[in-house]
Amino acid sequence: MLDKATAAKAASKILATTSAAVRNESLSRIADALDRERAAIESANALDLAAAQAANLATPLLKRLAFSGAKIDAAIEGVRALAALPDPLGHIQSATELAPDLILRRVSCPIGVIGVIFESRPDALVQISALCLKSGNACLLKGGSEALNTNRVLAKIICEATKDILENGWVQLLETRSDVAEMLAFDEHIDLIIPRGSNAFVRHIMDNTRIPVMGHADGVCHLYVDRAADVRMAVDVAVDSKCQYPAVCNALETLLVHKDIADVFLPALSVELKGRNCVIRGCERTRFIIDCIPATSEDWDAEYLDLILAVKVVDSPADAIAHINTHGSKHTDAIITSDAPTAEQFMNAVDSADVFWNCSTRFADGFRFGLGAEVGVSTSKLHARGPVGLDGLCSYKWKLIGAGQTVAPFAEGREKFTHREI
Amino acid sequence: MLDKATAAKAASKILATTSAAVRNESLSRIADALDRERAAIESANALDLAAAQAANLATPLLKRLAFSGAKIDAAIEGVRALAALPDPLGHIQSATELAPDLILRRVSCPIGVIGVIFESRPDALVQISALCLKSGNACLLKGGSEALNTNRVLAKIICEATKDILENGWVQLLETRSDVAEMLAFDEHIDLIIPRGSNAFVRHIMDNTRIPVMGHADGVCHLYVDRAADVRMAVDVAVDSKCQYPAVCNALETLLVHKDIADVFLPALSVELKGRNCVIRGCERTRFIIDCIPATSEDWDAEYLDLILAVKVVDSPADAIAHINTHGSKHTDAIITSDAPTAEQFMNAVDSADVFWNCSTRFADGFRFGLGAEVGVSTSKLHARGPVGLDGLCSYKWKLIGAGQTVAPFAEGREKFTHREI
Repeated sequence: MLDKATAAKAASKILATTSAAVRNESLSRIADALDRERAAIESANALDLAAAQAANLATPLLKRLAFSGAKIDAAIEGVRALAALPDPLGHIQSATELAPDLILRRVSCPIGVIGVIFESRPDALVQISALCLKSGNACLLKGGSEALNTNRVLAKIICEATKDILENGWVQLLETRSDVAEMLAFDEHIDLIIPRGSNAFVRHIMDNTRIPVMGHADGVCHLYVDRAADVRMAVDVAVDSKCQYPAVCNALETLLVHKDIADVFLPALSVELKGRNCVIRGCERTRFIIDCIPATSEDWDAEYLDLILAVKVVDSPADAIAHINTHGSKHTDAIITSDAPTAEQFMNAVDSADVFWNCSTRFADGFRFGLGAEVGVSTSKLHARGPVGLDGLCSYKWKLIGAGQTVAPFAEGREKFTHREI
Repeated sequence: MLDKATAAKAASKILATTSAAVRNESLSRIADALDRERAAIESANALDLAAAQAANLATPLLKRLAFSGAKIDAAIEGVRALAALPDPLGHIQSATELAPDLILRRVSCPIGVIGVIFESRPDALVQISALCLKSGNACLLKGGSEALNTNRVLAKIICEATKDILENGWVQLLETRSDVAEMLAFDEHIDLIIPRGSNAFVRHIMDNTRIPVMGHADGVCHLYVDRAADVRMAVDVAVDSKCQYPAVCNALETLLVHKDIADVFLPALSVELKGRNCVIRGCERTRFIIDCIPATSEDWDAEYLDLILAVKVVDSPADAIAHINTHGSKHTDAIITSDAPTAEQFMNAVDSADVFWNCSTRFADGFRFGLGAEVGVSTSKLHARGPVGLDGLCSYKWKLIGAGQTVAPFAEGREKFTHREI
């Protein structure tokens, strides 16, 4: 592992000084190679799928693990789309004249070496390595063990495709849990760890490293249906947020509804959810209105990732906000209302990465946000927050260009700073 | 401590929704109160100074600890200047139309609760609490124990001055090391720790908390005098970087000089440094040219914070860059050259927060950068880097406003994202 980390660090120094043209050409070669090597990818994936079926993995996991045909198309398309995006590096974020001929610029640059631990979707390996490459970062990748055969082939294709144009070692696959444990100790070599997985897993990582961690934690997402909601809109958005793809972190888990609209809204919602085999677990006041399973206190903290919805009647927007700030995971929370001040209050006071008004929680996604793609979702408040795209994979440095200025005349009051934005 | 952390978290929720007018009025009341209570501040500071003298503290420490007259003026002035700055909150960092009537905005917001552990300068307490207030953050502050009497009075003045306008608990003083140890466990309540101190101290903090840490580490700053340097400029900048205020983290510690200019440059530098009682510790090639103490390998990693300069002759800009990336602390490194491509190469390849061309390392400072003031200097690459001002004390949230949109029609290809910047 130390060799891998050292090679990644060395490669990152060179990658950081490559031009956008070189990085985009590398992406293009990766896309071509994936297209050429479909057969190898699909046969490796078939091995993984067979082993997973033999091990009786659940159907949603098998679906995520599968990687062929249209999914490969989409992965290739994603890499080509990234190549076409503007360069995230060298972007001048601010420019200030500190004094005559003394110009300060804040300029984006790569973070360095990023360790990413991700789940069993092989698409993730392609997407993450492409995002890291576009943003000039070296990466150490550990995928789900169920996808090991597929990941090995994908990592090999990506390395081979770029070996003549990039420094070797810029992308490396870790294969075992002990590799991950070792990686956590290399804070001299690795600048950021992105663990995608459960809250408990992210906390475990944080407890065992001094490398900064960008947490992709649980998504206990809420929809609050306000008194002033359009009922039809509220039902549509609730159904979409819950049922359109329940297995993902931006799916709805708890619905809060204002007491004044619950009588009308809940029966309409219940009909739609029943038609989609979605089960409701309701609070006492919900059960006065519709027929459903009683919710227990654990339901308010549950991330079901399944066709189950917790429902609670609340007395006010303030109660909804308090519930979300107590039980939420700071991921994505939405309000349906036609009352602008209430919506503003909700969006300002809910302490989550994504706060939505009159639309589905499922829009919380790097691609949908127009970020190109995402390397993960951050529920921390430092650095990047919410869907993390290329921006979140960049740092910045301050470049100050002078003509021989010293601090003494400024400190002694003989010269003054102008601090003029330019 | 749990009570303090809980109170800070509660206060932070309210502070996050206050208007700029309320926060600026609070700053103004703090400035007025500091002005009114000068006598109390000065007599508390006299107690601290007497105790420090009795304990034989070194003169530079005594200088930092002293807080009266002009230093109080400057602190008050700093608070008033912050009040006059634009609001860092609610700033729209990006706005995108995802689809018709579906508008995404990235909006700045506070981080929440920030724990700051700082050295014995009482000015730091005023500056840090004012920066946190301006940026809508609650703060838990632990100053140097030598300054405890002064800090108690300052914290009391700040709390009293804002008690009628802000939620109590937004600023709290910690008095003991065990308070700090306890604080590190409260990752549910505290969003960020800023430890100002030695590298070892910052690492100790990182090893003992899962709260994100913004490290204010050592400053082993370099100046590289290139072959194409103007010798007069190089001497002036070196002298300023080393001698203008040697006790601070942006002061020069190691000077690297190109072999082709060393014969001319080093004698000129040596004369100026001798006149300022600054000692040179030189590599073998340096000692061929000027009379100085031999440097040992430890000198290349030393942060002297004193009138001592390590000097090394190098063969090329690439050697200088490699030396800095190996021995530097990623703080501030400068080049003197009239050759633009060499300067560009240096600024791109040196992996430090601040990379300067033809000016003193001492410009690396939040106030000088025009950031208003600084809460610390970050040598990490995540979140804020270099001098951390109001920007670095802010997070952001994504606000998405729609008209009832669901994801299904986009996922099924019936609708398309427009992703138009607005």
